[in-house]
Amino acid sequence: MTDRTVTMVRVYLTEGDHMLRGLLTCLHDELKVGGVTVLRGIAGFGASGHLHTASLLDISLNLPLVVEFFDAPERAQAAIRRIHDYVGPGHVVTWAAELNMGDR
Amino acid sequence: MTDRTVTMVRVYLTEGDHMLRGLLTCLHDELKVGGVTVLRGIAGFGASGHLHTASLLDISLNLPLVVEFFDAPERAQAAIRRIHDYVGPGHVVTWAAELNMGDR
Amino acid sequence: MTDRTVTMVRVYLTEGDHMLRGLLTCLHDELKVGGVTVLRGIAGFGASGHLHTASLLDISLNLPLVVEFFDAPERAQAAIRRIHDYVGPGHVVTWAAELNMGDR
Repeated sequence: MTDRTVTMVRVYLTEGDHMLRGLLTCLHDELKVGGVTVLRGIAGFGASGHLHTASLLDISLNLPLVVEFFDAPERAQAAIRRIHDYVGPGHVVTWAAELNMGDR
Repeated sequence: MTDRTVTMVRVYLTEGDHMLRGLLTCLHDELKVGGVTVLRGIAGFGASGHLHTASLLDISLNLPLVVEFFDAPERAQAAIRRIHDYVGPGHVVTWAAELNMGDR
Repeated sequence: MTDRTVTMVRVYLTEGDHMLRGLLTCLHDELKVGGVTVLRGIAGFGASGHLHTASLLDISLNLPLVVEFFDAPERAQAAIRRIHDYVGPGHVVTWAAELNMGDR
């Protein structure tokens, strides 16, 4: 089974940043990364310590968003440099992983 | 504190694949992995570049799904071989992690 | 570009544990970790093998929750010891990652 080393990238936003659409368009149209998943948290807090939660009363609060993708290491590094136009420092986490190609 | 090395596995599907139920049943009944979490993304795109988003107008679109689990490395590798009956190549990412057992 | 090594921490709960509020308060008020995201799964099962799913009929079932954060390794280790007051053994997974600071 052949594995390829990839860099996993997770970008932490909040809905209130209004950066998701621009970032997704950049990842899709310009950086052409191989796949992106956007997850919405139900609660969270940032470095500011301000707590964000979803409840029946405040369902539209400023919830956390995680933009996740993986790509070849050099492509991921290029993407990260560009992503910093959309997020402040300390909002991008990466690690090495193996992409399993399912060859038998 | 005792840690055990595990392999984290993330499998990327979309709702339109209609593979989730079969994959979950396989992971649960046959592979008996120790725990699985399924996350639904609110937006995403795959290697095809086709953008998937949730909005009030198209809430039932083909959203991304992430099936995540961890297990002992040899058990995870056996599971991955089986998972490729459900997903195409390039949809399974793994990395090593530590499972913290909370001993003190 | 400067990277800092951090420890990624993922804590697996279910809604039925009723531990989320206490854990979040602890992470926020006492441990002061730099940021936390809580994700709710749409399906999953634990080591018990009991399957949890969301459907129109049982929307309020015992769904999986993932509490995710990262911090400097020594701070993360201190947090993990405290987290075990809220979750049983085998529900905390960690790995090393790089926090990208976006310096250019």
